[in-house]
Amino acid sequence: MLQQSPRLTGICNERRPGTVRCNCFHRSCQSKIVTVPTASSSYHQGFRWPRMGLRVWNAVLLVCLSFLLAPESMEAFLRPASAYPPLLQALQKGPLKVSLVGSGNWGTAVGKIVAANAKDSHIFNTDVRMWVFEEEVEGRKLTDWINNNHENRKYLPGFELPSNLRAVPSLTDACRDADLLVFVMPHQFIEKACRELKKAQLLPPHTRAISLIKGIGVRNGWPITLTHEIGSILDLPKPCILSGANVASDVAAENFAEATIGHPDGETETAALWQLLFDRPNFKINVLPDVDGVEVCGALKNVVALAGGFCEGMGQGTNTKAAILRLGVEEIKTFIMTFFGDLLADTLYDSAGYADVITTVFGGRNSKVAAEFVRQKGKGWDELEREMLNGQKLQGPATLELVAEVIRANEVEHLFPLFMSTYRVAFEGADPQTILDVFRTKQPRSIQRSEDCVKLKVPTLVQDARNRIASRLRKLGRSISELTRNPLDAPNDNAASANHKKDSCPRN
Amino acid sequence: MLQQSPRLTGICNERRPGTVRCNCFHRSCQSKIVTVPTASSSYHQGFRWPRMGLRVWNAVLLVCLSFLLAPESMEAFLRPASAYPPLLQALQKGPLKVSLVGSGNWGTAVGKIVAANAKDSHIFNTDVRMWVFEEEVEGRKLTDWINNNHENRKYLPGFELPSNLRAVPSLTDACRDADLLVFVMPHQFIEKACRELKKAQLLPPHTRAISLIKGIGVRNGWPITLTHEIGSILDLPKPCILSGANVASDVAAENFAEATIGHPDGETETAALWQLLFDRPNFKINVLPDVDGVEVCGALKNVVALAGGFCEGMGQGTNTKAAILRLGVEEIKTFIMTFFGDLLADTLYDSAGYADVITTVFGGRNSKVAAEFVRQKGKGWDELEREMLNGQKLQGPATLELVAEVIRANEVEHLFPLFMSTYRVAFEGADPQTILDVFRTKQPRSIQRSEDCVKLKVPTLVQDARNRIASRLRKLGRSISELTRNPLDAPNDNAASANHKKDSCPRN
Repeated sequence: MLQQSPRLTGICNERRPGTVRCNCFHRSCQSKIVTVPTASSSYHQGFRWPRMGLRVWNAVLLVCLSFLLAPESMEAFLRPASAYPPLLQALQKGPLKVSLVGSGNWGTAVGKIVAANAKDSHIFNTDVRMWVFEEEVEGRKLTDWINNNHENRKYLPGFELPSNLRAVPSLTDACRDADLLVFVMPHQFIEKACRELKKAQLLPPHTRAISLIKGIGVRNGWPITLTHEIGSILDLPKPCILSGANVASDVAAENFAEATIGHPDGETETAALWQLLFDRPNFKINVLPDVDGVEVCGALKNVVALAGGFCEGMGQGTNTKAAILRLGVEEIKTFIMTFFGDLLADTLYDSAGYADVITTVFGGRNSKVAAEFVRQKGKGWDELEREMLNGQKLQGPATLELVAEVIRANEVEHLFPLFMSTYRVAFEGADPQTILDVFRTKQPRSIQRSEDCVKLKVPTLVQDARNRIASRLRKLGRSISELTRNPLDAPNDNAASANHKKDSCPRN
Repeated sequence: MLQQSPRLTGICNERRPGTVRCNCFHRSCQSKIVTVPTASSSYHQGFRWPRMGLRVWNAVLLVCLSFLLAPESMEAFLRPASAYPPLLQALQKGPLKVSLVGSGNWGTAVGKIVAANAKDSHIFNTDVRMWVFEEEVEGRKLTDWINNNHENRKYLPGFELPSNLRAVPSLTDACRDADLLVFVMPHQFIEKACRELKKAQLLPPHTRAISLIKGIGVRNGWPITLTHEIGSILDLPKPCILSGANVASDVAAENFAEATIGHPDGETETAALWQLLFDRPNFKINVLPDVDGVEVCGALKNVVALAGGFCEGMGQGTNTKAAILRLGVEEIKTFIMTFFGDLLADTLYDSAGYADVITTVFGGRNSKVAAEFVRQKGKGWDELEREMLNGQKLQGPATLELVAEVIRANEVEHLFPLFMSTYRVAFEGADPQTILDVFRTKQPRSIQRSEDCVKLKVPTLVQDARNRIASRLRKLGRSISELTRNPLDAPNDNAASANHKKDSCPRN
């Protein structure tokens, strides 16, 4: 399939008999994947296809050739998307070095994916380093387990890890000269780790980071995302975020799962590389231009899960749970719009949006513990956490406290009735039934008018289908209203009813 | 709370000590509920408040007075929204007569709500008629049970119905001269009932209908909504639709639930009246200007439930179920856009959207039976329905057949990979695992660019809060970037990093 792109600008990563497949990053490409015959020495408008061989240099050659042949079209491509040097610069020197900062349950599951993708890649270095906080497990060091037995005996036992995933006990050694940093650790340790990395000054200026951490911070009554924190401490471009409806052990077992990567403005190319790093047949990645939306959804879903759990604990039915979930997502939307600016409809439709909130409310640990909080009235969060979670941490209550702090500091309690009533139940001894009072108003709700609503964009494929259907009908000389007319309604009937419809309404 | 609306135009429905509360339908009102002191004889710009007394005539007097005092502002209000006479005309002659067409499980639960609202209303006639298909229950007629024992012994046993809900065994008697028709019956009987009503010619031209039925039809390979069918057979304006995450017995037990009313263009006033008819403290109604979107979501959710059930039957985890749910909603979106035109983001966020799909996938009967379909390989749908549902009907497979028929007839299989693979599993003996093949592609998914995404509108209340926060910060001489700066980053550091950021990127 030869794409008629004006210029091939991208990274080739797969050689097949007679063809090469390339990932095209250029805006002008019609498709992300371009397949070009190796045999043909020229490709559209005399663009020469370089001989395959020095694989790593393909991208560099491509870029230089394109630049020489058509400087104007390359300018937009090479112009640094942000004020930081683009990653492509690093690719000129060889495959990108990937380091994982964190090696817990989720970190190891992700390490397994990343290392598998890096194994035969021309884009990523085969050696994937993972920072492991050293500890003894069954008489051996954890790094020893991972590097020699290829198993994270403590946090992901029973899963074989790729041999190119290398555990490194020193944070600085693990991250030295890394082009791509994957942060996946409990959020309370982030600041310390970032400061240590910053102090050691071992990251090149083009380094990009991504956060897989769910959480949120507060400073001066204002919410701080962890991507903001990582980016500002390390002085990197704002990192991307990966979030979605994922249970670590299911992902490690290669059950099918999806996730969303959200990227900030100007980092589309970086996000495309992150997608190549994480995308597996059983772990599909959508990429969206919205980093704050994706991140805040992931953090605040646990607050909605608490409300859902309280409702479960009161013995309410699915009707009520659905209403709580709906209002919970509304308040997440409001939180993002109030404190972070715009929000894309697409974010909520993606894996990091509704799908993640649903799985958290309908089966997450926050929801389960919150239900017990209501049933075993009088027990505190710490006590329930100890009894029920077997060492795992409960994120919901801590996040809820931060959220309530932000809401109060900015005097916007009226916009968050569900979050605030959940807070009062969780921390101020309020009756769980008061959550339902948020809904049970006597007044009818205000009517949403057309001008307050947002029409979804019709995707190109759907628009094409609509056009094709319309032109087929035109050729047949038929219309949709003709198709849908009830055959029992004779045409005369229709004429009569048309007259009737014209009856105007008396004015008094 | 005296609203500074330019003109009060609406229907008053509650007298309190010293005040009256009115529902304002006029576009110029800032709020839907207006409270005015009874004592004050004038209200904003000399508008005279009529003495309360002849309650029914309040609305008429209001309309006439407003018309006399400010004809230009009233014109938009009185102008028939569609080509049919507005309902307000009927209100001039007295309270609106409500009839329910259907008396099953959901019909009776809704009848309970409607009759309770009509009991002390000045807008709706106290006598609410409900068409009951006559049958013998425990030796007595079902109408006798309802009218004398106030219980639908067969379809909603154990719940006391309001005494003003009157069962009528004849369809024509039940609907004669009805101003408001509530259709809530199995969808296969709709056409027959509508034709009987049309033939009897007993509906006034201003009659409005609403459908509470979930289902879809097909004619000439094109999907037909039931509201379209009802409206076109009865020659009424396109009816509204009520749909949401509702379980009939939970609603009857007055557990909290929500629903969405979708209305067609120009029927906002009608929808506002429907809202007053259905809204209860435990059954809250949102109103949206989107009838096809709400209706198709309600019909197609059962198809997604089948896919979710298959996935459950294969023993897949929540990750996979969440992915199926997400893609299912995507394909519902695509179906609406392909065959019905525009879709509002708001519809999917409402009770009839995601909330309803979730409860159906995570606990509905279609999902449960589909899981057994996979587990007990070889059994047919009819057999499972008989064994598992105790006389209830399974809507999913029938809807799926219609949906597949529409998709094939219009040659758009490529837009509906999940629906079509679900169809092949349900009806063509395909391996359930093939559903997962829809997701497990080797190619990375295409990247969504900003221009393909839709920004949500910031609601007025949220915008107000944003402005207030910004002005408070200005007064304090602070900025958000100052609030969020990490105190450990000294200002000098920032200057240094700003310089660093300016490093431009080498061009080759």
